[in-house]
Amino acid sequence: MSTGPGTAPTTLPPPPSASPLDPTLHLLRAELERRCPANAVGVDAMGHQAMLPAGKLLRPLLFTEAAAAVGMRREDTLTAALGVESLHVGSLVHDDIIDGDDLRRGRPTVVARHGLPNAIVTGDALICGAFRAVAECADGTIPGERQLAVVRVLADAGVDLCRGQAMEDELRGDPGCGLDRYMTMIELKTGALFRAACLGGALLAGASPGAQAALTRFAEHLGRAFQMTDDLLPHTSDTETSGKSVLSDIGNGRPTLPVLICWQRAGASGRERLTAALSGAVPADAALDDLRAVLSETGALEQARAETLAESRRASSALLDLPDTTARDTLAAVADLSVNRGL
Amino acid sequence: MSTGPGTAPTTLPPPPSASPLDPTLHLLRAELERRCPANAVGVDAMGHQAMLPAGKLLRPLLFTEAAAAVGMRREDTLTAALGVESLHVGSLVHDDIIDGDDLRRGRPTVVARHGLPNAIVTGDALICGAFRAVAECADGTIPGERQLAVVRVLADAGVDLCRGQAMEDELRGDPGCGLDRYMTMIELKTGALFRAACLGGALLAGASPGAQAALTRFAEHLGRAFQMTDDLLPHTSDTETSGKSVLSDIGNGRPTLPVLICWQRAGASGRERLTAALSGAVPADAALDDLRAVLSETGALEQARAETLAESRRASSALLDLPDTTARDTLAAVADLSVNRGL
Repeated sequence: MSTGPGTAPTTLPPPPSASPLDPTLHLLRAELERRCPANAVGVDAMGHQAMLPAGKLLRPLLFTEAAAAVGMRREDTLTAALGVESLHVGSLVHDDIIDGDDLRRGRPTVVARHGLPNAIVTGDALICGAFRAVAECADGTIPGERQLAVVRVLADAGVDLCRGQAMEDELRGDPGCGLDRYMTMIELKTGALFRAACLGGALLAGASPGAQAALTRFAEHLGRAFQMTDDLLPHTSDTETSGKSVLSDIGNGRPTLPVLICWQRAGASGRERLTAALSGAVPADAALDDLRAVLSETGALEQARAETLAESRRASSALLDLPDTTARDTLAAVADLSVNRGL
Repeated sequence: MSTGPGTAPTTLPPPPSASPLDPTLHLLRAELERRCPANAVGVDAMGHQAMLPAGKLLRPLLFTEAAAAVGMRREDTLTAALGVESLHVGSLVHDDIIDGDDLRRGRPTVVARHGLPNAIVTGDALICGAFRAVAECADGTIPGERQLAVVRVLADAGVDLCRGQAMEDELRGDPGCGLDRYMTMIELKTGALFRAACLGGALLAGASPGAQAALTRFAEHLGRAFQMTDDLLPHTSDTETSGKSVLSDIGNGRPTLPVLICWQRAGASGRERLTAALSGAVPADAALDDLRAVLSETGALEQARAETLAESRRASSALLDLPDTTARDTLAAVADLSVNRGL
């Protein structure tokens, strides 16, 4: 709808299609901007550039909704929730160094813009800032033991995340590494921080052991569903970009769910073709065609998709042990959106 | 004293010269080894390799002695104290990446031994592990608020440390950057973690505001004295190693106290010679001779040494506001040893 010069619009534009996630994302974005003032310099300014414009804010959303699902006011959770995001972004800043990535969310990465030394210390400062945020989030309004419990799960998740990254590196280039090791790796690399977000929110809110257990189960299944979807995405959309992503996974030898399932289901000759396609010795286009053929013959994509949806359903089921609230509905929506990658 | 084969020694060897630091260092080393089991793998194993064999353990020593100076049992401080060491070592692992250093304490650095990706995640895991240690150090035996206060000062110190490292990078190659900026830089880069160690110990022990203030003042002066001594060391010993260290400081343009004082005291021609010596355009030996000449003519080394000793004395004076204990004596010994680099 365009209005000519000097003409006042006669009707309001239609509201954007509303998501149940929007109200909390709005709160989180406002708080994030408040915490990243424009006059920062040095490491602080570089950290803000990594945090803003915000990404999906999925982990802080989980923190806030988990706390709300057991009765805490969302407004009281935002500082700690953004602490979880700070740890996540700090690890991404370091990931971009490791992977040599120049762009993230369409903008230059810290390492591309400010060089390796600055990217290392910016990531470190964001990681330390995460614990600062959790430690300062309540100012005496809730028992210190609760914040301390959040520090503990967040620190554990930070260590697990590193273990998962190192393990991914170990598994690189080995399509026969096995689904068990893959599952352990994604539980560490991705699941740990999802778990810390949901359990952390529950702990800050003083949730009962039963509610803590339900939110932990929800997070563990959601984390798997999320990472498995990430692995599937390049194979299930038909764009040119997706071909490039598959090639990128081939190129860096990253172990992904479809390939591991394919290996498990393939016979000796299928495994040989898979190994050849992943070896880097075949021209990229031929490797891609071959990989797609073996994946198709073994039905690996269908099985990967089925297992991913099963994880998402298990995540939703875990929520049934919680009281019926809008926060619970939002968490269920996250479980649904994560496998349909509406986020 | 040698004993022949088959001959039992007839006397015990003389005891090693005792330092007042030894009993606490012994406790810390034993606890550190207990926390680094030999069967660790992956990131954990790489982290242990960075922590062991232990360095000077100066920061955890300060934590434990500060807590003991206000009445806490040393045995109850060790976990949190080693958390401070974990943050320190994590930042060193990252420093070694930035500086491209292959050796630390005579052993290969993590980056030299395991490559950049592993060194980044090992440092991250050590940093997160620091907060884990503080959050788990008491298991309900002291109020959670105290541990939370330690998390806060440690996280602040971690961020300050990063700010200091980035600031050092900014000041690199500018001998005229001024003593004020240098002091700010060393307070962030070195002082912040000394302060977190002493104030953290005091907070964990539930120290009075007066004792917290005294230990903070002590730590701030000690941190300056320690870094200023570090800057002076290459100039004040006559070994070949020291010449190499001066050349290394020249080579990487790191701002050091003697050079900044020299710039302040030199006239226009002295500053020209200083700039030329630091420029990297002159052959190393000639640059070293020239630098030593200008430092000598301006009396920069004497002034730097006098200011360093004054900081150490101020550190000791701050301790007079604490009760007379063996812990206070140990802290005074640290202030003395730090400028005579007995540690």
